[in-house]
Amino acid sequence: MSVTDEYLANNARYAETFEGPLPLPPSRHVAVVACMDARLDVYRILGLRDGEAHVIRNAGGVITDDEIRSLAISQRLLGTREIILIHHTDCGMLTFTDDGFKQQIQDEIGIKPEWAAEAFQDLDEDVRQSLRRIEASPFVTRHESLRGFVFDVATGRLAEVSG
Amino acid sequence: MSVTDEYLANNARYAETFEGPLPLPPSRHVAVVACMDARLDVYRILGLRDGEAHVIRNAGGVITDDEIRSLAISQRLLGTREIILIHHTDCGMLTFTDDGFKQQIQDEIGIKPEWAAEAFQDLDEDVRQSLRRIEASPFVTRHESLRGFVFDVATGRLAEVSG
Repeated sequence: MSVTDEYLANNARYAETFEGPLPLPPSRHVAVVACMDARLDVYRILGLRDGEAHVIRNAGGVITDDEIRSLAISQRLLGTREIILIHHTDCGMLTFTDDGFKQQIQDEIGIKPEWAAEAFQDLDEDVRQSLRRIEASPFVTRHESLRGFVFDVATGRLAEVSG
Repeated sequence: MSVTDEYLANNARYAETFEGPLPLPPSRHVAVVACMDARLDVYRILGLRDGEAHVIRNAGGVITDDEIRSLAISQRLLGTREIILIHHTDCGMLTFTDDGFKQQIQDEIGIKPEWAAEAFQDLDEDVRQSLRRIEASPFVTRHESLRGFVFDVATGRLAEVSG
């Protein structure tokens, strides 16, 4: 039995007490961009309830064209007006370099990824990099609040990064 | 008081009973790719516990270069071996077209996004599109399981899409 099958059994139990459907647009008008890290249960960390906020996640919680795409859709079609960025301590993105990661792939399969791996060496600095990328985008302009945080995986606490 | 501030107050309460830290690599070796929709509390839908699985999310739960980047890092650096894709009913991506969305932006600010918006018209077909994009990538090859599902926002239940 795969882990996927175990999770499907969990889903059947979840559905037994599920109450839906809720409306499509996020009721609190918030979009979160966070790292994919397994220890970040974003709904619990922020106390989000079903239907309140979009949650966008990727390796590092970085801002690339795909996060700009998601945020543009979130703001322009579904009315979100606050953005919360979450990086975290002990992040895998601190453990390698773009050059090394891409060389390893090239050595193994002969093709170097045409995309940046987006590794970083300083958490606060990369949160600021994400803030700057959003501020520089002509497509994501409808927010009234844009703030960035580092989640501490040892304490469960968010610390704000000054812009 | 912004919603962000309310969520920070929730986080302070969350931290009071937080037990950490857990190890960095996902303990169940799973990566989930799901839509950013506010009604998809992925941890609850699948019964994920802290530290078990990477969770990647974007508008639609589609596969672009950034999801390939995240999945490559997930598999090659952090050892995940199963991929679960989740789209859902009543998705915002079913309500517009790429051409219309990009024209609206161009009309307003004079710049047409250089990226695809990734709107789609058929849920099952787009899950299959995501499966095919992963299968076609030379960078995401280490999984032993790759399966796609549609989450029903009315019932809470996942339905598998045949590949």
